[in-house]
Amino acid sequence: MRDAFHEELDNITESLVEMTNLVASAMARGTTALLDADLQLAESVITADETVDLLRGEIEERAFDVMARQQPVAGDLRMMVTTLRMVADLERMGDLALHVAKVARRRYPNSAVPPELRSTILEMGQVAQRIVAKAGSVIAGRDLDLAKELESDDDAMDALHRRVFHVLLETEWTHGMEAAIDITLCGRYYERYADHAVSVAHRVIYLVTGERA
Amino acid sequence: MRDAFHEELDNITESLVEMTNLVASAMARGTTALLDADLQLAESVITADETVDLLRGEIEERAFDVMARQQPVAGDLRMMVTTLRMVADLERMGDLALHVAKVARRRYPNSAVPPELRSTILEMGQVAQRIVAKAGSVIAGRDLDLAKELESDDDAMDALHRRVFHVLLETEWTHGMEAAIDITLCGRYYERYADHAVSVAHRVIYLVTGERA
Repeated sequence: MRDAFHEELDNITESLVEMTNLVASAMARGTTALLDADLQLAESVITADETVDLLRGEIEERAFDVMARQQPVAGDLRMMVTTLRMVADLERMGDLALHVAKVARRRYPNSAVPPELRSTILEMGQVAQRIVAKAGSVIAGRDLDLAKELESDDDAMDALHRRVFHVLLETEWTHGMEAAIDITLCGRYYERYADHAVSVAHRVIYLVTGERA
Repeated sequence: MRDAFHEELDNITESLVEMTNLVASAMARGTTALLDADLQLAESVITADETVDLLRGEIEERAFDVMARQQPVAGDLRMMVTTLRMVADLERMGDLALHVAKVARRRYPNSAVPPELRSTILEMGQVAQRIVAKAGSVIAGRDLDLAKELESDDDAMDALHRRVFHVLLETEWTHGMEAAIDITLCGRYYERYADHAVSVAHRVIYLVTGERA
């Protein structure tokens, strides 16, 4: 039997995982909208971000409520505060997926991604998917080995980000300034998305080991 | 006489204001380094970010310690959690100033800012200064009227950000792709810096009124 505090904590953890799934879906659909110039899909990501924000507020309220009623100490207190930080990371990841979708919408009916960067952006989307899926599993299962894997996924994202700059700077760019700006910003959105996912994993490591990763 | 909890809270608030001053100075010097192509100044911003990160860690530890020992409830608990969020905003502002300094360093001995954007970047730096100075006063004095002023400063920042895009897109850009990328990224750094300062002010409003701004 778990006590009331830990039961509420389990519920909050479930909601955190749900939030992870929402921001994963947002970036998956945002990437497809960007690559396929799919306006409807882009709009769906933009609309769905409200759900992420609502869930964020709801988890925060519940966390405050638990803290006020149960007065957790030591490890349990750290857990509650860490939860609030993870919620903030996840909400920001939702915002970044929203930004990608907004670039897709702004450039519709054209694609914001020129042919020579298509595979790079596709891969950035895939790495984002892998990294957020792992972050969700780390939250759910507190798996420290998996948490460490996120580092190498993040390295992969950084390498893709450098490739974007390489194509912009070292090859003949024929797509104009607007496309260059959009790609520069999208590159940064993916990179920050991965950073926040790594940060979620680090927070779980900190919870389990008490050490900052 | 204040009790032990509120005395510790006052100390933490002082440290928050100190952190605000550090990230204000970082963005001021980062902007000058960017405009003047001043390598030494850029390096000083990059080095000083460690102090911001250390102060962040120290405030967090103290906040946890107070929470664990004093078991605050209701408004006091909300205050502690809000403090931790403000620390996160401020640390991120320090990172963004660091990014500006890194652009200055990367482009040295050239300036990353072409002549036609010099006044815009200068103004973005000035708005950043105003907004962070106000955020510091809001933290120190809980002045709700001042907190509301940050909105219009943020609008000014957004207008400057749009001007950057206007120059990039609507005028004859003769400075090459690297300068375009640097300016696109710097524009975003200033805009995000202002967003976080507004977020700090909103958190103070929430503390005082219980309402989300």
